Amino acid sequence: MLKSCVFIVCYITLFQNILCAQENKQETMQKTYTEFKNNARKIHTLSSMESLLSWDQQTLMPPGAADDRAMQLKLQSGTIHQEFTSDTNKRLLQQLIDLQTGRILFTSATEEQKANLKEWRRDLLHATKLPNAFVQEFAEITSKAQESWQKARNNNSFSQFQPDLEKVVELCRQKAEYLGYKDHPYNALLDLYEPDLTVQKLDALFSRLKPALIDLLQQIQKRPSINNSFLFQSYSKTDQWDLAHKIMEVMTIEKRYTRLNESAHPFTSAISPPHDVRITTKIEENNLSTNLFAVLHEGGHALYCLGLPEKYIGTPLGESVSTAIHESQSRLWETIIGQSYPFWEFFYKTLQTMFPLQLQEIDLEHFYQAINKVDPSFIRIRSDEVCYCLHIILRYEIEKALFEKSIEVADIPRIWNKKMEEYLGILPPSEDLGCLQDIHWSFGDFGYFPSYALGNMYAAQIFDTFKREHPEWEQHLISGDLHQLRNWLQTKIHRQGRFYTPDELIKNISGKELTEECYIQYLREKYAHIYHL
Amino acid sequence: MLKSCVFIVCYITLFQNILCAQENKQETMQKTYTEFKNNARKIHTLSSMESLLSWDQQTLMPPGAADDRAMQLKLQSGTIHQEFTSDTNKRLLQQLIDLQTGRILFTSATEEQKANLKEWRRDLLHATKLPNAFVQEFAEITSKAQESWQKARNNNSFSQFQPDLEKVVELCRQKAEYLGYKDHPYNALLDLYEPDLTVQKLDALFSRLKPALIDLLQQIQKRPSINNSFLFQSYSKTDQWDLAHKIMEVMTIEKRYTRLNESAHPFTSAISPPHDVRITTKIEENNLSTNLFAVLHEGGHALYCLGLPEKYIGTPLGESVSTAIHESQSRLWETIIGQSYPFWEFFYKTLQTMFPLQLQEIDLEHFYQAINKVDPSFIRIRSDEVCYCLHIILRYEIEKALFEKSIEVADIPRIWNKKMEEYLGILPPSEDLGCLQDIHWSFGDFGYFPSYALGNMYAAQIFDTFKREHPEWEQHLISGDLHQLRNWLQTKIHRQGRFYTPDELIKNISGKELTEECYIQYLREKYAHIYHL
Repeated sequence: MLKSCVFIVCYITLFQNILCAQENKQETMQKTYTEFKNNARKIHTLSSMESLLSWDQQTLMPPGAADDRAMQLKLQSGTIHQEFTSDTNKRLLQQLIDLQTGRILFTSATEEQKANLKEWRRDLLHATKLPNAFVQEFAEITSKAQESWQKARNNNSFSQFQPDLEKVVELCRQKAEYLGYKDHPYNALLDLYEPDLTVQKLDALFSRLKPALIDLLQQIQKRPSINNSFLFQSYSKTDQWDLAHKIMEVMTIEKRYTRLNESAHPFTSAISPPHDVRITTKIEENNLSTNLFAVLHEGGHALYCLGLPEKYIGTPLGESVSTAIHESQSRLWETIIGQSYPFWEFFYKTLQTMFPLQLQEIDLEHFYQAINKVDPSFIRIRSDEVCYCLHIILRYEIEKALFEKSIEVADIPRIWNKKMEEYLGILPPSEDLGCLQDIHWSFGDFGYFPSYALGNMYAAQIFDTFKREHPEWEQHLISGDLHQLRNWLQTKIHRQGRFYTPDELIKNISGKELTEECYIQYLREKYAHIYHL
Repeated sequence: MLKSCVFIVCYITLFQNILCAQENKQETMQKTYTEFKNNARKIHTLSSMESLLSWDQQTLMPPGAADDRAMQLKLQSGTIHQEFTSDTNKRLLQQLIDLQTGRILFTSATEEQKANLKEWRRDLLHATKLPNAFVQEFAEITSKAQESWQKARNNNSFSQFQPDLEKVVELCRQKAEYLGYKDHPYNALLDLYEPDLTVQKLDALFSRLKPALIDLLQQIQKRPSINNSFLFQSYSKTDQWDLAHKIMEVMTIEKRYTRLNESAHPFTSAISPPHDVRITTKIEENNLSTNLFAVLHEGGHALYCLGLPEKYIGTPLGESVSTAIHESQSRLWETIIGQSYPFWEFFYKTLQTMFPLQLQEIDLEHFYQAINKVDPSFIRIRSDEVCYCLHIILRYEIEKALFEKSIEVADIPRIWNKKMEEYLGILPPSEDLGCLQDIHWSFGDFGYFPSYALGNMYAAQIFDTFKREHPEWEQHLISGDLHQLRNWLQTKIHRQGRFYTPDELIKNISGKELTEECYIQYLREKYAHIYHL
């Protein structure tokens, strides 16, 4: 009895010791987590400087400073990579999460901490899988390819770009091998932009989306064309500049945290979100749409960055989840809102007042039709909503084939033109209006294009949920209240950071995984009305 | 004989070995020099990012990003200090130059390399003499003092600023002790901005300059006042913006390497000289002078930075030599050129064409008199040429006394007002127009103000040499050719970097050390003409 008692006491003590050791271990983990988080915050601050360097380069930098800026950017990106992949950083993270398997070791961590660990692991694996020598070679080759692309496009000659593009594709094939993949090498690249995206998923989506879009386009093309020539009158730069700021205000973008500049290609720069998010626009005197929809598009990106949760800044939970979800926000504001009838019921009078000479004779209905005119364009970025995803599908099919090695770089122009005719019914008269139009491939950004199409589908599915949750949405929009939508998007998406994967996020919001259905339905209804189909 | 021969051969061999060893040592030194230079180049690149962060903060940054920016700046300045004062860096430099004595060890270095070593040593000693804990405390205290100064100025109450200023002064006294000095603690601070500047030198200069200026001012005040009210009519911002760019063009400032923005206080930012040097201006609708002379002033600073020798960038020979020489360049363009009769003989017609309503009735002579009107102002930065240095001497005398401990911070308002009456004959009606007007002390920038006075004296002595070397200078100016002057300044000053000390530089240019004589003579002649003395 006594013996047994002693045994029990011993056992309890042992158990307490184990518990206590575990507690101590978890306390140490908490410290390790804080240490890793502080490093991450420092790296985040370094990245914000890199963003400023890059923003300035594309907006205001004197042209003579190009070489100096390249040197600054190279140093900064090198430092960031070095700091993030340092042995110290790896060692710290390995104590909190098993880098091999992804098993969380810091078991008493909060759900938020666990989500951060999971995403930090993901980033670290991506960053360390590519050998340094490869990263440097990639930077060099793509830097040359960008110059070569610029020249080839100016000279309208794909063959001038071909040798450099071949090198880039070869490097991207190697990159896929380094990163590793299941089923298809292209999956490795897709996953860089859109976590867990695969060829299998895209094939399924696009196989249904493509015929639906081609069918809708062909129906529209049987209808009389819309006259939108008034959009191409002279609209003064100063007034367009004011318009851009009015649009930003309407979109509920806070002046305190943002600014607008001009650049050759509009973009959003999240220098230090949510406190410093800048957008740019392009103002063309003879095209009202360029600036108008650039601001709506970039403004959508900006609202995402401005809605990121302040308390998680410097960790994955303070970052946007994927390029496609980002694109869903820009396209939602640009097209679903910015090219909608209720928005213009609210804003058209303001626009008419700003440009009376050009618009006083144009009624709301005509204006609405004009900004939604469907007319296949050779150029992706000038494309209407119906044609846009067909441009993307074309690029996706070419990229996928390149990584399956079922085609080679030399085949691109021929395949490009064939698909343009097949999907959009037009044949590019020259290569600068065809396969040379986009800069992405020269950067080595294979796997990026699909995000654009996904963005549109996400946007439609997200907005479908919003409408169901807020049946009175149209009245808000007509009265100029865009806070309702912004707040909803903020709660559902922006504030989530990278807590969920894109797949989880869309399921949380809409109750189902991403499909093309909402998008097709949205287009069919909208264009049935516009074109009296 | 044989023995002796062997001895000689041995001796020669030994001598050759020594020579060879020395050569090897010097070869190693060359490698060490290159290694140190590469580190310096990296630090220079880090500094250029810091400059961009700071430029952006003062021009375009959304106000909500202030805290983020402070964090970015703190990280960057910390990194720069850390890298520059690292053990590796110290060890490398110590191999090339004795850090204690300044004796060059890399004896086979070129003259340029030796000059760089001397200046790097100077910088390293400055950077390492202050303990880290002190640097951090200094940053914190001055950061708070800036806020407190801002509030105190707004509330027009020195006593609100006094406790913080007392802390700053105490820290600056400690700083002087850390840095070390001969004769006077204030010398340690002066030397930070102007190498080798001492109280002794300044006392000598100012003891002659002060009575001469007071005498000239009193003579002028006996003459009828000039009516300059037309300068305060309405001048549209857009037209003033165009004027600023025209002035920059006339000054031969290359568009390729610069840009103009607006800011609360005009400044020049040498982000990445000579390829990225930006200036700002302030445009006031009801004051033509503000923008006009801001651009001439900052343009002068910019020309210095744009003239720095490209091949030495990242080393001291690629940097400007001192704040006073920098100020000589800005004041030369702003006052000696920009407020000269021949310049306006060339440019006044252009100005009249830009602002016909305001200027068509004003003839050149009247315009020239108006921009040179002498009228004591409470505010230093709005001061005319005759009064300007009296503002500086007042500040110098207060600073010197603070570091001699012959006065305390609490005495400042009383002494300030007393000296204002004595030197300029006016009594500030409030402290915001008196001792609270400048931000410098809140930064802890004691020792900086004298540079402004020296800048004027340097400018006059430099320009005196230019005129003697180019007696036809006036014709060039009247015909709008400012290349002649710019090229001369570039050769004599800008291209020299920090090869010479300021003392050596002025002797090389003008054949004598800096005195107040040229400046007094310049003012007497100019204002004798304007005021018919």
